[in-house]
Amino acid sequence: MKLAAVGSVAFDAIETPFGKTDKIVGGAGTYISLASSFFVNHQSLISVVGGDFPKPFLELLKSRGIDISGVQVKENEKTFFWSGKYHTDLNSRDTLITELNVLGDFEPMVPDVAQQAEFLMLGNLSPAVQLSVIKQMANRPKLIAMDTMNFWMDIALEDLKETLKHIDVLIINDEEARQLSGIYSLRKAADVIRALGPKILIIKKGEHGALLFHEKNVFYAPALPLEEVFDPTGAGDTFAGGFMGYLAAAPKLDFDTMKRAIIAGSALASFCVEKFGTERLLEITAQDLNERMQAFVTLSTFQLEA
Amino acid sequence: MKLAAVGSVAFDAIETPFGKTDKIVGGAGTYISLASSFFVNHQSLISVVGGDFPKPFLELLKSRGIDISGVQVKENEKTFFWSGKYHTDLNSRDTLITELNVLGDFEPMVPDVAQQAEFLMLGNLSPAVQLSVIKQMANRPKLIAMDTMNFWMDIALEDLKETLKHIDVLIINDEEARQLSGIYSLRKAADVIRALGPKILIIKKGEHGALLFHEKNVFYAPALPLEEVFDPTGAGDTFAGGFMGYLAAAPKLDFDTMKRAIIAGSALASFCVEKFGTERLLEITAQDLNERMQAFVTLSTFQLEA
Repeated sequence: MKLAAVGSVAFDAIETPFGKTDKIVGGAGTYISLASSFFVNHQSLISVVGGDFPKPFLELLKSRGIDISGVQVKENEKTFFWSGKYHTDLNSRDTLITELNVLGDFEPMVPDVAQQAEFLMLGNLSPAVQLSVIKQMANRPKLIAMDTMNFWMDIALEDLKETLKHIDVLIINDEEARQLSGIYSLRKAADVIRALGPKILIIKKGEHGALLFHEKNVFYAPALPLEEVFDPTGAGDTFAGGFMGYLAAAPKLDFDTMKRAIIAGSALASFCVEKFGTERLLEITAQDLNERMQAFVTLSTFQLEA
Repeated sequence: MKLAAVGSVAFDAIETPFGKTDKIVGGAGTYISLASSFFVNHQSLISVVGGDFPKPFLELLKSRGIDISGVQVKENEKTFFWSGKYHTDLNSRDTLITELNVLGDFEPMVPDVAQQAEFLMLGNLSPAVQLSVIKQMANRPKLIAMDTMNFWMDIALEDLKETLKHIDVLIINDEEARQLSGIYSLRKAADVIRALGPKILIIKKGEHGALLFHEKNVFYAPALPLEEVFDPTGAGDTFAGGFMGYLAAAPKLDFDTMKRAIIAGSALASFCVEKFGTERLLEITAQDLNERMQAFVTLSTFQLEA
């Protein structure tokens, strides 16, 4: 198995300017695995749910080649639940409810089948938990990527810095990059952050695309200007999952391949936001994805010579 | 003469987190003409200054092929003066002083030499004044572009809508596009705005690049992630001037050429912000500009096939 991912599998209740949902399935691990399933047909998801989690959804994950032997089911407890309301511009949101439930004392267990994975994606969890996953791997994976958030910079910065020493790719947004580095210029921030450990940095800028930094190279991936962003939930995790899935399936790991992987992640994220939750990811086909990736080429290609 | 531009020639006093200036030469017309002078060696600037404006600066403009017979000099009055202070993120600023002076009753006069210009750039002025310039042209130019700002949407919306009917290219920022259309999605806003007249729309997004809309085509131009933005003053006007100068010198006016013109404008704007005022624009060479445009290719080029 090439790819393993750890991240929450959860219930979300979402309100956007376009409508609201009851509890639907969400969680970083869910989005990451669904996105990477477009590129790898065998991968491992490491997570935890309660007895209230719908078994058919776990079957659905399995049907997409996602091994769930690493998903602990705590029958007498409840699944992590988050509820949030997005503002009109969809760039900011209020958290209404956070019930950690099974996630409160989550100790990920990397199943045997995943311990040789060459690619490891660490979804947003406490940095100590992320590190515990790395330490369970039988061999050091070829590429370890992680997400994190401001919250951990506020309450667990030393843990975060320790975990950063063990990874290859950090995937965060612009605000997080500025907080972590203490520097406003993203170009300078990228140098400061990479000095902490990860040799590759991806800074997500939402509707403004993403920046990839590796050695002296910088790549600016555009974002597709969408008619409407219906629900941004999961877009960042979908991006990360698409990025890692693409790399896990690629013949090599050079900068050109990483650029393509970012376009893959961006394309999947652009689908994700078109409907609530995972709905759109579950209905698109490989051909839809290819066409969307081609739209990114059309959007951003130019030549200086006529 | 292919190109004419109207816009303020002014004094600015600027404070940024990196320092502050006394009164230095600025103004939309200044930046526009300097930027387009990298592509056209004969153009007309239409503006007004007071008796306090330094004659050597006017000579400097002439030395760059900028005809200043359209720059009225009101010897007994004072030049337009603006003073502003940028916030730490450089994306917002406070205006400290605005002294309209000669700009208060500015009635642009298009000199004979400019009346046949095929390209006309209308810098940010009242929409009625912009329209008066169009009406003075002997022939309808092949391409008329204009800038505007929220202020005119607030106090002269009907005038603005009238002027929009007479132009081809509107160049505004994302906030202005949202205000003018009343729509948050830039993709939808672009349709609403183009229904008002301009068949081509450019939405500038500062450090996030720019979007070009024409018919069904959309182009996402990246912005170079800079080590430091020293002074953003004039970046938007430099972008517009570079765009129009490039087009005026180009053999045709198709979408591919417009994409290149946006890269030209973006490259010049990326220089502009590296020092205070016009300083950087005055010291770079054609080779510097070519290299910077090439950097945009490196920054944003990818291929889906290995």
